[in-house]
Amino acid sequence: MIAPTPRPPYYAVIFTSLRTEIDDDYSKTAQRMVELAQTMSGYLGHESARESLGITVSYWQDLESIKNWKYQTEHVMARDKGREAWYAAYKTRICLVERDYGFEKID
Amino acid sequence: MIAPTPRPPYYAVIFTSLRTEIDDDYSKTAQRMVELAQTMSGYLGHESARESLGITVSYWQDLESIKNWKYQTEHVMARDKGREAWYAAYKTRICLVERDYGFEKID
Repeated sequence: MIAPTPRPPYYAVIFTSLRTEIDDDYSKTAQRMVELAQTMSGYLGHESARESLGITVSYWQDLESIKNWKYQTEHVMARDKGREAWYAAYKTRICLVERDYGFEKID
Repeated sequence: MIAPTPRPPYYAVIFTSLRTEIDDDYSKTAQRMVELAQTMSGYLGHESARESLGITVSYWQDLESIKNWKYQTEHVMARDKGREAWYAAYKTRICLVERDYGFEKID
C-alpha cells in the first residue's frame, strides 16, 4: 500500500481535496482514474486516504509524464466534473522528490 | 483544512504510514507533534488523512527548517516510539514543491 517508488529524483503530485455531498459516480470515476493512471507512461505508483480531507499522492518519472496524464482526454473530463460537482475545494502541488527513506518491521 | 501555503517554491514532507494495532498514547502524541511542529520556524502548514494507509503532508519553508524539526528532541523521541510500537511501516519523502494551483467553489 506504500508505493514502491524508485530512488529519487522522481516527481510527486499531491492532490488535497474537500468533497461536496454530491456523489453521482464519484467512486466509480475515482477508481477508473486510478486504473487509467496505471496505464500511463512514467506512472510510478500512488497513495490515497480520506477522512474529512482527502489526500491522493501520485508518483511520476518526470514532468512530461505528469503533463501527459493531466491532458489525457478521459482525465480532463473527470477533472471538469470534479470542479462542477464533486469538489468544494482542492489544491494540486507538483513536487520534485529529492530524498526518501523508510522503515518496515521485520517479524 | 487545505493548508494555505505561500507561492512556490517551498518544501513538502510526505509521511505515509501503516499502523500496528498498538495504541499506547499514539493519538495523544500525534496531536502533540502537530502542536509542536506549529511552533517551529519555517513551518507552513500540514494536511492529514488516514484510512488503512495514513498520509500526513507537512509544508516547510526550506530544508533547514525540516532538519530542525527532524532533530527537535521531543520529535526524536516520538519517532523512536513510532518505530518501536506504532508503525508497521512508513516512508518519508522530502520534496521541493515547484508549482501549485487550486480551486474553491464560490456560492
